[in-house]
Amino acid sequence: MFLKNCWYVAAWSDEIGDGLFSRTLLDTPILFYRDTAGRVVALDNRCCHRAAPLSLGRLEGDCVRCMYHGLKFDPSGRCVEIPMQEHIPPQARVRAYPVEERSRWVWIWMGDPDKADPALLPDTHWLDDPGWRSLSGYMLHQANYLQVADNLCDFSHFSFVHPETVGGSVAYARAQPQVERLANGVRIIRGLEGDEPAPFVRKLRPEWETVDRWNNYDFLVPGVLLMDSGSVPVGRGGANGSREGALEFRSCQAVTPETADSTHYFFAQPHNFSIDDPEATRRIHQVLLDAFEEDRRIISGQSRMLAHDPEVRMVPLGVDAALSHFRWVMNKRIREEQAA
Amino acid sequence: MFLKNCWYVAAWSDEIGDGLFSRTLLDTPILFYRDTAGRVVALDNRCCHRAAPLSLGRLEGDCVRCMYHGLKFDPSGRCVEIPMQEHIPPQARVRAYPVEERSRWVWIWMGDPDKADPALLPDTHWLDDPGWRSLSGYMLHQANYLQVADNLCDFSHFSFVHPETVGGSVAYARAQPQVERLANGVRIIRGLEGDEPAPFVRKLRPEWETVDRWNNYDFLVPGVLLMDSGSVPVGRGGANGSREGALEFRSCQAVTPETADSTHYFFAQPHNFSIDDPEATRRIHQVLLDAFEEDRRIISGQSRMLAHDPEVRMVPLGVDAALSHFRWVMNKRIREEQAA
Amino acid sequence: MFLKNCWYVAAWSDEIGDGLFSRTLLDTPILFYRDTAGRVVALDNRCCHRAAPLSLGRLEGDCVRCMYHGLKFDPSGRCVEIPMQEHIPPQARVRAYPVEERSRWVWIWMGDPDKADPALLPDTHWLDDPGWRSLSGYMLHQANYLQVADNLCDFSHFSFVHPETVGGSVAYARAQPQVERLANGVRIIRGLEGDEPAPFVRKLRPEWETVDRWNNYDFLVPGVLLMDSGSVPVGRGGANGSREGALEFRSCQAVTPETADSTHYFFAQPHNFSIDDPEATRRIHQVLLDAFEEDRRIISGQSRMLAHDPEVRMVPLGVDAALSHFRWVMNKRIREEQAA
Repeated sequence: MFLKNCWYVAAWSDEIGDGLFSRTLLDTPILFYRDTAGRVVALDNRCCHRAAPLSLGRLEGDCVRCMYHGLKFDPSGRCVEIPMQEHIPPQARVRAYPVEERSRWVWIWMGDPDKADPALLPDTHWLDDPGWRSLSGYMLHQANYLQVADNLCDFSHFSFVHPETVGGSVAYARAQPQVERLANGVRIIRGLEGDEPAPFVRKLRPEWETVDRWNNYDFLVPGVLLMDSGSVPVGRGGANGSREGALEFRSCQAVTPETADSTHYFFAQPHNFSIDDPEATRRIHQVLLDAFEEDRRIISGQSRMLAHDPEVRMVPLGVDAALSHFRWVMNKRIREEQAA
Repeated sequence: MFLKNCWYVAAWSDEIGDGLFSRTLLDTPILFYRDTAGRVVALDNRCCHRAAPLSLGRLEGDCVRCMYHGLKFDPSGRCVEIPMQEHIPPQARVRAYPVEERSRWVWIWMGDPDKADPALLPDTHWLDDPGWRSLSGYMLHQANYLQVADNLCDFSHFSFVHPETVGGSVAYARAQPQVERLANGVRIIRGLEGDEPAPFVRKLRPEWETVDRWNNYDFLVPGVLLMDSGSVPVGRGGANGSREGALEFRSCQAVTPETADSTHYFFAQPHNFSIDDPEATRRIHQVLLDAFEEDRRIISGQSRMLAHDPEVRMVPLGVDAALSHFRWVMNKRIREEQAA
Repeated sequence: MFLKNCWYVAAWSDEIGDGLFSRTLLDTPILFYRDTAGRVVALDNRCCHRAAPLSLGRLEGDCVRCMYHGLKFDPSGRCVEIPMQEHIPPQARVRAYPVEERSRWVWIWMGDPDKADPALLPDTHWLDDPGWRSLSGYMLHQANYLQVADNLCDFSHFSFVHPETVGGSVAYARAQPQVERLANGVRIIRGLEGDEPAPFVRKLRPEWETVDRWNNYDFLVPGVLLMDSGSVPVGRGGANGSREGALEFRSCQAVTPETADSTHYFFAQPHNFSIDDPEATRRIHQVLLDAFEEDRRIISGQSRMLAHDPEVRMVPLGVDAALSHFRWVMNKRIREEQAA
């Protein structure tokens, strides 16, 4: 049971190029392509005639032709040609999904198209702002999306899962975050003054001995993380002080269910320093790849344990405040949607 | 739920040689071997004692010995030796299935043996007629047998799935076939006069510019295709005119369920020209292999789509007349059999 | 449904070394490690907080730390540290299992810990008796544990499954064993005087032409085989005569369910001759490995057959007396345990 009436990240812009691209989202196989004007089209990847995948078909101008029996569909999903007959039955159509492309991310709306309001899209302009640089990250988790969401709602795991990458001292795990319950997610303010630098910061700025660091972010329905994070030499006021000379990031991450047991994970780590040094951007991206492999290992292990006993009772701790609220919001939204 | 009281193709004759051969048919593991007279024996591939596979056993004359505890079974499935005891309980037997071997195909009857009438076997003499040549083709589809049957009931897919092999012009997809509803299947008469040659015909007869072509066939319960197909230079009357100098084929194909989700596919393409040129026979067979890989790709894709939503509604088109009738006949036969 | 209140072999002693070791037993993932005194600890391999596997954690003295959020557990399963908060909720614990280590085998009690009486452990002292030598054997069967138990309850399969290893003549299959029904298993006395040597005996003692051989063993709940087996030149009284110059073995084997469809199999073949010749020990062990691969092949085949029809009726034979009794005892014990 997934939330339908919301925007999900479906792909990086450059994943959808000249040809047909398919991806399963919310257990629904979707076909993506660009029309002749470059706009992204999203259709059910299943011909309405005999259920052949349209992704095995052929792009023809603004349309896609199923290469089983030749039915041709326009960007609205309407069948516009059946080679073997003149009459096109009105029910000969595949579902088309509202799509918005913003700052290198392609968003899709899987619910009621009338509710697909682009004003609901979160601001991720750092992904293509000329003052920021980042590379495109993607991985597939073999886990339910809520396990990935849990992970992103509680950075106390940084010290244990990521001691050699983005984590660091146990003190950072102990730093109590402020958790603000939002109607559509959670806002988390986590910072520590006078901490040792995280390992990746130590590599970027070997001369820094003690820093103020912060990870301040919103984690929003259905799984979008927008973060202001950084480090600065101790004593300048941390996140609230001057950002002059700080290492600053505006991470954009998104969690989209593939199926009940697998999850797409899109991520980038925009930075506003060394923006003319592609090698710096590449190294910062590599830190993320390494760290998220560490997450994937523990989340996959968690999935294997849950598979043995899906109904296991978990013991709630204080650090679960954010993930509990996020799960509560998701559950509430899904129940409301189902009831409507 | 499979139809039981009918003949299914179980194997090519040469698949059952000197040793034990096993294949799952209709979700039932079957053991095949030849007795000392060369007759094919078909038994449940599961010892009646502790369910060990007899295919891990040993052929001993007309009998097979289970190599778990040594029980020996004769071609009727009766246990004729239990090494550890004198008494052989009457229920110590495995099921034996009626088998008929005709023209390189081994047929099996999985239902009531009393109804296994060899007169019901279709005529496939082209498979070993001295005036015709063909090689033995086999592949396993990861799809329900009815998806493969659908494919064979409607050749309008030729133009889209097989544009570079056995298909050709879109005009051939548009050619309206005659569909005759038979009690035990469908008869399809498809032809086009003055068409461009199919790609494989173009290779066999580069000098032909415009042809009459035809694919006239019966597709019979439980999944046997018997076809008269060919091409001839335009103006000689096509399928109904002189076959002098024509490229003629008598394709024999059979679809047999392995499980609900996988299907054996046996096929050959007998031709009556160049019969002393094994290389020609090999090339004609290769065309079939290439074309059926094209089918397998689209049918597998269809299976993946259906797995996401097995109850999906399909939009019926005129070209579905034959497959709809075939499915209706199969369904009727299965219901009658279940009710009996 | 597994029997819980009994000792199961969980591992060879040397499988649990300096680090963390995990194994699934009775469908339950278990973590093993040694405390600082070298005692084996067995805990649920699933953190009580968010179900991460403790086997991805870190051993810290007598404790293990979950490396998701840093919870630390002592050998009793009690959480003794939560880095992010002072208060440790009393329900923050993982289940600990009674463990006993005897003669190179680590035993675990998966049921009510109050009933875990070490006096119930069977005597397997041959595994580390200075007068006997053996190597440690392990394999995983892809089959229910009762199929492996069946195999061990009836050695009439020796002649058919193991003709080139531990088996031999069909006469040995025909030799009627005495089967004594025990409250907790079966006792089997199988011997044959004046038989040809088993193939592996022939290699060890090429000069022996005719032997008395025996396989006398108990097969005990939940799946422990303790055997006195051997061969001696004919005429010395066999198992009941002098063991002077005999080839004697005290095989210790144990069957422990991993899941409903997979089974751990632990085995060793202690011998009391050539005890200063490691190469002899290695060769004797290799015979077992070869023979048990032969068993695995037939048992896997049996599993595949049963998967097609789990409810298949089997035809009982006289040789099934022991396995039938063992299954009856297991079933009775499980029913009693469930009812309690």
